[in-house]
Amino acid sequence: MTDPATDTAELVAALRVATGPVDLSAIATDATPGFDADKEAGEAALLSLGDELSELQERLFAEGKSGGARSLLLVLQGMDTSGKGGTLRSTVGLMDPQGVRITSFKAPSEEERSHDFLWRITNALPSPGYVGVFDRSHYEDVLIARVRELAPAEEIERRYQAINEFEADLVSKGTRVVKCMLHISADEQKERLLARLDDPTKYWKYNPGDVDERQLWPAYQEAYEIAIERTHTEVAPWHVIPADRKWYRNLAIGELLLVGLQAMALEWPAADFDVAVEEQRLVDEDPIG
Amino acid sequence: MTDPATDTAELVAALRVATGPVDLSAIATDATPGFDADKEAGEAALLSLGDELSELQERLFAEGKSGGARSLLLVLQGMDTSGKGGTLRSTVGLMDPQGVRITSFKAPSEEERSHDFLWRITNALPSPGYVGVFDRSHYEDVLIARVRELAPAEEIERRYQAINEFEADLVSKGTRVVKCMLHISADEQKERLLARLDDPTKYWKYNPGDVDERQLWPAYQEAYEIAIERTHTEVAPWHVIPADRKWYRNLAIGELLLVGLQAMALEWPAADFDVAVEEQRLVDEDPIG
Repeated sequence: MTDPATDTAELVAALRVATGPVDLSAIATDATPGFDADKEAGEAALLSLGDELSELQERLFAEGKSGGARSLLLVLQGMDTSGKGGTLRSTVGLMDPQGVRITSFKAPSEEERSHDFLWRITNALPSPGYVGVFDRSHYEDVLIARVRELAPAEEIERRYQAINEFEADLVSKGTRVVKCMLHISADEQKERLLARLDDPTKYWKYNPGDVDERQLWPAYQEAYEIAIERTHTEVAPWHVIPADRKWYRNLAIGELLLVGLQAMALEWPAADFDVAVEEQRLVDEDPIG
Repeated sequence: MTDPATDTAELVAALRVATGPVDLSAIATDATPGFDADKEAGEAALLSLGDELSELQERLFAEGKSGGARSLLLVLQGMDTSGKGGTLRSTVGLMDPQGVRITSFKAPSEEERSHDFLWRITNALPSPGYVGVFDRSHYEDVLIARVRELAPAEEIERRYQAINEFEADLVSKGTRVVKCMLHISADEQKERLLARLDDPTKYWKYNPGDVDERQLWPAYQEAYEIAIERTHTEVAPWHVIPADRKWYRNLAIGELLLVGLQAMALEWPAADFDVAVEEQRLVDEDPIG
């Protein structure tokens, strides 16, 4: 059940980007649209989503086991430290791990680079009934690839349309696509990187290369703006999640998942067998005696 | 922290099978070895493991991100309704989904059948730092394959040794292997199948074919006994989990996971960079201002 402090319609409307040019600098990274209470209440609101989220996900899983083709794909993108991992733990972790498949995309391997950029993505798509989660995704191929010039400009240009066609095809085959850009400020990133340096249990999350990428912050913001504008479609819209507040980020993505699953009108599959006959078989045919 | 009602050493010792012939009929399916309290206390004891389990798993994940090669593989086997799915939800779900990879093995596809039976298993092994979970596994290839004669007898015979060599190799490369057979009684299975028929939200879990398999209960028990005896090794031992009580099954597997991770002596990786230098870089090299 949704918490009373949450206005889901307002939240969804505020997070979904408008069609046309995107100006990330105009979207506050520390706002909490659609939620009118504090951190403690926000954390409680997320947990209160858990039961419905979990039940709807189980219905989707059940549908997949019963011949259905539908699935859901959550795409998480964002700068380093924006909270993709925390979202996996706190929000995705509310669902039964049995029905969730997470894929973390790293720099492509040699084999992956020998194929089209969507090859490894296709291989990681959720099977029927599953909630697939991409921690980074095909969008890296128009983000870091653009900023670091890892591909020729005309290839980057080609990819926006290729992504739109790919996602439209996915949706037409029954996958609901929920795309989220975790939007933090450069100052917040600095605080989070410094916090990692201040805690030996977090050293492993720190990579000096992250500071090199950080120097390109404006170029990344621009690459995001272009990518979001070019791939924000009716069937696979983008959401920009104010992510300076971790609790709001977790709650907002939980709400988007819940709304996405609700829109699928998931029902428990009917029996494709005769219940009475099966009951009788179980009683009659006892292998032990 | 382990609950006071839990005697971990007793639990582990009781669940680990002895070397030599295995007699499943001599192992009570409703016992709770190593835990001296009721269901409510058992559920609380499982939750009280969560923090340590989760922290050790994060240390393993951190190690993997920092160049370590180690991982853990939990193998879940058991008859239909024995609770593999429930274990995923209740026990595996205590860990951060970011570091867990679950693979559910179904009847092999045509492509999988064209390869050796360990091909698809090799493809699903956990990457460094991950906890991999197999919901069914290569053991199906000596269980249903034996009972249903899906392969010639000499091929089944070959597979026990092939499994031992495969697992020994895995362990030598840094994967800790935790093998659990979820042991329920035929009566408990009947109750669980009848319960699925009594609840329309559970019809999807019911398959009339399960009753056909159930008719072969004694043959399956024998196949398990042989498989466990032949593949119970020092490096990759088998545990038989009394699984009629779901709460005990969840707790016992949680304890085995915890003990397994504890034995790996996991430490937070040291910084492979100069902390002070990085702090200074973050302060000096500000891309925004």
